[in-house]
Amino acid sequence: MSKYFDGWPHVIESQQFSREWLEREFLPLGDEMQVIFEQGGCDILHGKKMVSFFYKPSTRTRMSFQMAMEYLGGRTVFATENAREFSSARKGETLSDTIKVISRYRPDVIVIRYDFELGAKFASEVSTVPILNAGDREPGQHPTQALLDWRTIYKRRGAIDGLRIAMVGDLKNGRTVRSLCYLLGKFKGVIIDFISPPEMIMGSDVKAYLSRHGVGFTESTDLREIAPHVGAIYQTRTQAECGAALDRNDHELGYFTVDAEIVMAMKKDAIIMHPLPRVDEIATEVDSDPRAVYLTEQIDSGLVTRMALLDMILVPDS
Amino acid sequence: MSKYFDGWPHVIESQQFSREWLEREFLPLGDEMQVIFEQGGCDILHGKKMVSFFYKPSTRTRMSFQMAMEYLGGRTVFATENAREFSSARKGETLSDTIKVISRYRPDVIVIRYDFELGAKFASEVSTVPILNAGDREPGQHPTQALLDWRTIYKRRGAIDGLRIAMVGDLKNGRTVRSLCYLLGKFKGVIIDFISPPEMIMGSDVKAYLSRHGVGFTESTDLREIAPHVGAIYQTRTQAECGAALDRNDHELGYFTVDAEIVMAMKKDAIIMHPLPRVDEIATEVDSDPRAVYLTEQIDSGLVTRMALLDMILVPDS
Amino acid sequence: MSKYFDGWPHVIESQQFSREWLEREFLPLGDEMQVIFEQGGCDILHGKKMVSFFYKPSTRTRMSFQMAMEYLGGRTVFATENAREFSSARKGETLSDTIKVISRYRPDVIVIRYDFELGAKFASEVSTVPILNAGDREPGQHPTQALLDWRTIYKRRGAIDGLRIAMVGDLKNGRTVRSLCYLLGKFKGVIIDFISPPEMIMGSDVKAYLSRHGVGFTESTDLREIAPHVGAIYQTRTQAECGAALDRNDHELGYFTVDAEIVMAMKKDAIIMHPLPRVDEIATEVDSDPRAVYLTEQIDSGLVTRMALLDMILVPDS
Repeated sequence: MSKYFDGWPHVIESQQFSREWLEREFLPLGDEMQVIFEQGGCDILHGKKMVSFFYKPSTRTRMSFQMAMEYLGGRTVFATENAREFSSARKGETLSDTIKVISRYRPDVIVIRYDFELGAKFASEVSTVPILNAGDREPGQHPTQALLDWRTIYKRRGAIDGLRIAMVGDLKNGRTVRSLCYLLGKFKGVIIDFISPPEMIMGSDVKAYLSRHGVGFTESTDLREIAPHVGAIYQTRTQAECGAALDRNDHELGYFTVDAEIVMAMKKDAIIMHPLPRVDEIATEVDSDPRAVYLTEQIDSGLVTRMALLDMILVPDS
Repeated sequence: MSKYFDGWPHVIESQQFSREWLEREFLPLGDEMQVIFEQGGCDILHGKKMVSFFYKPSTRTRMSFQMAMEYLGGRTVFATENAREFSSARKGETLSDTIKVISRYRPDVIVIRYDFELGAKFASEVSTVPILNAGDREPGQHPTQALLDWRTIYKRRGAIDGLRIAMVGDLKNGRTVRSLCYLLGKFKGVIIDFISPPEMIMGSDVKAYLSRHGVGFTESTDLREIAPHVGAIYQTRTQAECGAALDRNDHELGYFTVDAEIVMAMKKDAIIMHPLPRVDEIATEVDSDPRAVYLTEQIDSGLVTRMALLDMILVPDS
Repeated sequence: MSKYFDGWPHVIESQQFSREWLEREFLPLGDEMQVIFEQGGCDILHGKKMVSFFYKPSTRTRMSFQMAMEYLGGRTVFATENAREFSSARKGETLSDTIKVISRYRPDVIVIRYDFELGAKFASEVSTVPILNAGDREPGQHPTQALLDWRTIYKRRGAIDGLRIAMVGDLKNGRTVRSLCYLLGKFKGVIIDFISPPEMIMGSDVKAYLSRHGVGFTESTDLREIAPHVGAIYQTRTQAECGAALDRNDHELGYFTVDAEIVMAMKKDAIIMHPLPRVDEIATEVDSDPRAVYLTEQIDSGLVTRMALLDMILVPDS
């Protein structure tokens, strides 16, 4: 494990991964995992125990982590889908005490979605067991989502260098776009077009990071102008639970929605991504377009990415 | 599998099962499952993965599906007990997107209880994985309950033809009686006595079905008059969560309650059924009567029925 | 199994355990379990099925039971983290019906936390499967917590006879201190110093029991006076969910808080215990003191204790 993470066994934020790791370790291991998945699984994690501790709702992330563990022969030995209400957190226990106790039972890995920013990072500082961040509260990070998004783009295009990608929607609160930006900053010639209502623009922390790493970016408010020029559109959901809302008329909404008109304008080899859940920011008429990968390759990549991470962290000397 | 379901691997509604399948496939396979259960289980579904996705509360159905999977050597790899609150449904994701994503992880079967009618049917149309309907929202269907009820009656009586059965309570909202009616419509000489307050009578869709299939039925309001004449009483709970209520005086309530007086009037070889949970519509003094099967044979039949369905769907060429 | 429990396979309340059982059976078996835990587990409960049925929130207890089952090779085949809301309890089903149904599926053991006092005891009277009480509603009992606490003290001191222990906090509602008192009543020369606000004093039922069993006790309101004299401080949390509240000024709160000043006054070989979750009744500055066992030895003892109980109950002739 140490050869991948340099003695840091936790997955907390996108910045921790190097370009070398992404291309030389993560990518080929993911391909191995894809084969194992297609063959119905293996037994390499037999006897390994995962604790799945979610303070916020999740379907995809929690299920794909648990599925990934199963496909590798390991087990989810304890899962809570709402730790905030049904664990001792409700009685006022601190995250530090909770993680110290869970660590003490010696599971092999703890997957955590915490409901405040930097929860996973803090957990990793008191844990004696590897922590996998399954998503901070927005804004924050969702590093395994960034890895699966990165892998999805790479597999379709064969490279990340020179990518031009539009990120659309609630960029202020969207942890997935934030985490993906941090990964893209490791590559050359990348241009990111941020498209959002003015009150939902990408945070200055991410933009400063991109500038430091030589990533060009634009900010605008109409996807229709940008769509013809990009290799990927990364659409996101308005984080209504963060108080955000797109209270606009239909015309204005058109600026941010992926529909048949947008798809028509896109390049033939571009792709359309979404971290899901999707509400109405991508019209269902788009789903069957071969460029749409949000219900297909992104999902597969999510499983394979989590299998690869579990394999790296839990298999001795792998 | 296909030899049972003719290429339709989902369990969605009672109508899909033929008399031949019930008697020649389901019944003997259930007996095999009973033996496996009594022997403590087998390993025939080793490596098979079940997803248990409940949008509404359940104890019995969810537990018996998960237990059935265990007794056959398979695993529940992901379970949610309240998908409406703790899954992405809360963020507005459609059932279609959710099922497409879950299918993509390639579990072997998805057990779903949806909180709107026809949810399971709709899920089966977008799923690439077999769907087992663990109960629609009322009114609607609960086909595995109907199968276990049918099997319970058959095992006690040795036949369904010629059965006279009283169905009692909230027939308007009760999905279990609805589903059982559809199954009984496959048999000859069946008479159903519907007994309910006037505002809770059986829906006309079911009654039309029964008429088309030659099943006689009566509608009345006092169980005490009917009890001496039937081979089975199928008591149900008032679906208070559907807005139904039996706001009556004690005398009137007596019309619909199974108590010692009713039991005394019943035939010696009749049976008393209830899908549970029971509130007070069957007095606990009835529980120890040998004709009461709701806490015994119906429970066993529920486990065995779900084992048989999982075996049929998941074992290659079984 | 019977050799341990004399034909009573349930774990319901502390009184059921004899001194002989504690010292000659439970203690050495716990040591065996500690070795198994450190070796990463065994397979002795292969194929055994546990149902984990919680009507109230829990992290530690539920997780340590499920972990204990895994370390012995058994499985949690069904778990609910909030049975009151998500099981048929919500529809009005009685505990009796619920337990009869669960028993009928023949799991090997049912772990239950019920939200009314004596729930587990009642469950054991209708169950055909061993019941493990994972905590009654306060006041009530939490026998597996008492066993793990007892074991923690024993392992540090080498004996219980002659122990002087301070129990601090909400003694009226605290089920853990109640259960521990019942166990300590089996030993000689024990003195318990109860320290609580006047409105939260220990119940007269427990005090009468202690008197009958020759256990001396004092009642006072300032931990600082008692701390220098005891071999153990057992700190507890105010059960805010029981309507209790420590609405006092900082000076008065000092009477009941374990902080650096208290620790300084304690004997060198004394220990500081807490059942967790902890809010602020033990200052975090105390955590690193070698006498603090609440985040270390008590946690380990909890796992080992539950492993020992599962082993006793589920392994034939062990």
